[in-house]
Amino acid sequence: MARTARLSGFPEWLPAGHVVQASVEETARRVFELHGFAGIETRAVEPLDQMLRKGEIDKEVYVLRRLHADERDADSGLGLHFDLTVPFARYVVEHAGQLEFPFKRYQIQKVWRGERPQDGRFREFTQADIDVVGRDYLPFHYEVEMAVTMATLLAALPIPPAVIQVNNRKLAEGFYRAVGANEPESVLRAIDKLDKIGPEATHRLLVEQAGLSSQAADLCLDLAAIRTADSSFAEQVSALGVTGELLDEGVRELAAVVDGANAERPGSVVADLRIARGLDYYTGTVYETQLIGFESVGSIASGGRYDSLATDGRQTYPGVGISLGVTRLVSILLGNDLVEVSRPVPSAVLVAVLDEVSRERSQRVAAALRSRGIACEVAPSADKLGKQIKYADKRGVPFVWFPDVDGDSVKDIRTGEQTPADANTWDPPEDDRAPQVRSRTDDHRSTTDQEALS
Amino acid sequence: MARTARLSGFPEWLPAGHVVQASVEETARRVFELHGFAGIETRAVEPLDQMLRKGEIDKEVYVLRRLHADERDADSGLGLHFDLTVPFARYVVEHAGQLEFPFKRYQIQKVWRGERPQDGRFREFTQADIDVVGRDYLPFHYEVEMAVTMATLLAALPIPPAVIQVNNRKLAEGFYRAVGANEPESVLRAIDKLDKIGPEATHRLLVEQAGLSSQAADLCLDLAAIRTADSSFAEQVSALGVTGELLDEGVRELAAVVDGANAERPGSVVADLRIARGLDYYTGTVYETQLIGFESVGSIASGGRYDSLATDGRQTYPGVGISLGVTRLVSILLGNDLVEVSRPVPSAVLVAVLDEVSRERSQRVAAALRSRGIACEVAPSADKLGKQIKYADKRGVPFVWFPDVDGDSVKDIRTGEQTPADANTWDPPEDDRAPQVRSRTDDHRSTTDQEALS
Repeated sequence: MARTARLSGFPEWLPAGHVVQASVEETARRVFELHGFAGIETRAVEPLDQMLRKGEIDKEVYVLRRLHADERDADSGLGLHFDLTVPFARYVVEHAGQLEFPFKRYQIQKVWRGERPQDGRFREFTQADIDVVGRDYLPFHYEVEMAVTMATLLAALPIPPAVIQVNNRKLAEGFYRAVGANEPESVLRAIDKLDKIGPEATHRLLVEQAGLSSQAADLCLDLAAIRTADSSFAEQVSALGVTGELLDEGVRELAAVVDGANAERPGSVVADLRIARGLDYYTGTVYETQLIGFESVGSIASGGRYDSLATDGRQTYPGVGISLGVTRLVSILLGNDLVEVSRPVPSAVLVAVLDEVSRERSQRVAAALRSRGIACEVAPSADKLGKQIKYADKRGVPFVWFPDVDGDSVKDIRTGEQTPADANTWDPPEDDRAPQVRSRTDDHRSTTDQEALS
Repeated sequence: MARTARLSGFPEWLPAGHVVQASVEETARRVFELHGFAGIETRAVEPLDQMLRKGEIDKEVYVLRRLHADERDADSGLGLHFDLTVPFARYVVEHAGQLEFPFKRYQIQKVWRGERPQDGRFREFTQADIDVVGRDYLPFHYEVEMAVTMATLLAALPIPPAVIQVNNRKLAEGFYRAVGANEPESVLRAIDKLDKIGPEATHRLLVEQAGLSSQAADLCLDLAAIRTADSSFAEQVSALGVTGELLDEGVRELAAVVDGANAERPGSVVADLRIARGLDYYTGTVYETQLIGFESVGSIASGGRYDSLATDGRQTYPGVGISLGVTRLVSILLGNDLVEVSRPVPSAVLVAVLDEVSRERSQRVAAALRSRGIACEVAPSADKLGKQIKYADKRGVPFVWFPDVDGDSVKDIRTGEQTPADANTWDPPEDDRAPQVRSRTDDHRSTTDQEALS
């Protein structure tokens, strides 16, 4: 399927590619709403000082300025948001008086980062986020629900199998402190590099930058090597002989997420103690998601628990969320030809025009079909019928309708079968009503597969 | 209904307001697809030189820069798009080899303008555009179809009555030339100010700036005063005693749009010879739309025919389009309390939790309901049941489900009626499945009203 990106990092799809992206977004909306998340949108801009407080990515922010702005312009100091979590935290604090807590919301919007574009990394891309925030308190069980909801969405999409990898910051921090780390965050940052630089270089970082003993560094690497499909990771952690209260709490929470999510969606979640996540604000469960066969592209759905991202000084709004990288996922699907689209246009029917005088008659047929939810278009010109059929064929429109004073007929141009038809009663087969997106690798997956939502 | 705009010109809605905006967008998508328009998205940024060529609004463009960009950054020279027509024209030229013509597309996206915010005017807002472009040639009948499609959408929305006002650039230019104007565009610009400055001041502009004789200026003002619900405007134009080939062609086209659109959608379109539209690129039919009772806010749907906006030097792609101002419309609906939303959350059901040990049981009920498309959520805490019912009530969730080993039951908390129920078979009333948006001024209008699409 064709994709184009003439301005590097700013992807744009042809209509068939857009069908894929729209169906991913539509499926996300449907799954999120079934789970009780309310949709919102936040503005695309945030005050720079707000965004930069969240650290790490200041150089990636796009700053706005009006072309003929004067010095003291009210818009100066605005930038495009780089994610949907920071704007959501701001929205919650701003509107807290008008919201009910715990507040469950989803948000599907574009974000912008001025990063160097590369495979799977864009400067403009769409994210689909869910978050739950409480006022002062948020029950732990939502950390399970995030994984279940995202696993349900992933199962409903026409994509290769995906696995959500879960870790817990309390577990990591408790372990690092117990082996003698004064700055658990330095340890986390070193472990975050493990995949890229390997265990030896990570060991060096742990000793030299995080100040660990060589033995403690070994233990941290042993911890990061643990990956289990169920809560048996707990025994492996226990076998390392490190103990502590925070560590135990983290182990209990991680076991609850893995077992709880797999009880509802078997095989959807693994415990992976190597998962660090870059962002500072996570305080409990953290999630990353591998698309099997495309691990090198990076996580397609990430998030975690944050206890103090949103606060107005008097109250805090602890939350947990996870975000699907829609553009990254769609670019994998299109770039690797993993899906097929039954047609790039919505029309199920082209209504032929016999001559320009009778165009109105063809329009009445179209209006009758539309009134029953059948997408259609009227031929652009009263060309020879063969040319009109060719026109439909080129677009992938499956049916051509022939108005006739002696009785209309409709032709399936794929089979050539032509039958008498009445625009007030005829229906296309269910699969032909709207463009279908199907996985090329697994016939059972499809965005219209209701059962995948169960 | 609450709305908020803490950053002037960048509107944000509470969840109930978002339900309204999302339903407007969803209805637009549905109507556009029923009429055979394929969805696309273009990136939010365009090269500045591209945008500024289109004139008039250069000062309104937001320019981007990376926070730590160096001088020769590849991103310098990019701005946020200010409409969807210019990016669409660029998209068509860029991808012409991979598109089928005439190409019908819709596009629902945000745009940005650094204008002074005021009533109905925003710095960030969503537009819903449809356009058809041909290669080298585009049949006239699409100028009728644009009006019909937009009228169909407006009729399907829960809004006050709207009237599409149509004029024709050929008619106007032909008339102005025939009365002696050398620069028809100056006449157009003066007429465009008629509503604001009145006929006397416009007459002065026509004489002093457009170089018309006083008598010719009178004739132009007489022309601008013509407004008819059908093609009878043609006789009134004729009565002014001005003739010309281009004028005649414009009269014929305008009559065809008004009569053609009203034949399909009675009363949807009027001929209004005062309509000028600011943008230079229109060459035939032009559209503006008044929301009755809210005329002062400005047009809610505008567009027109353009013959040479999109060209790659060798070929041109003439087009016609019309754009619904989604944010402007939604802000009118919310700001004037014109709609009511049945609830701000998707959940039809809150599944109660009797105690934390049995949360899993409640989750199984929720999964069963979701598998049949019923949006629901599980109570956040195993509070007293009265408190859980209150929780649902505050959110507008109409049903509370009580799991029970002796048989579940479900309560409609609006009526208090409680009945035995099985999560594998129970269904809420159709109107309670999803949030409903209803007009407060007209009970028959609703976004779920299928008949309005016929």
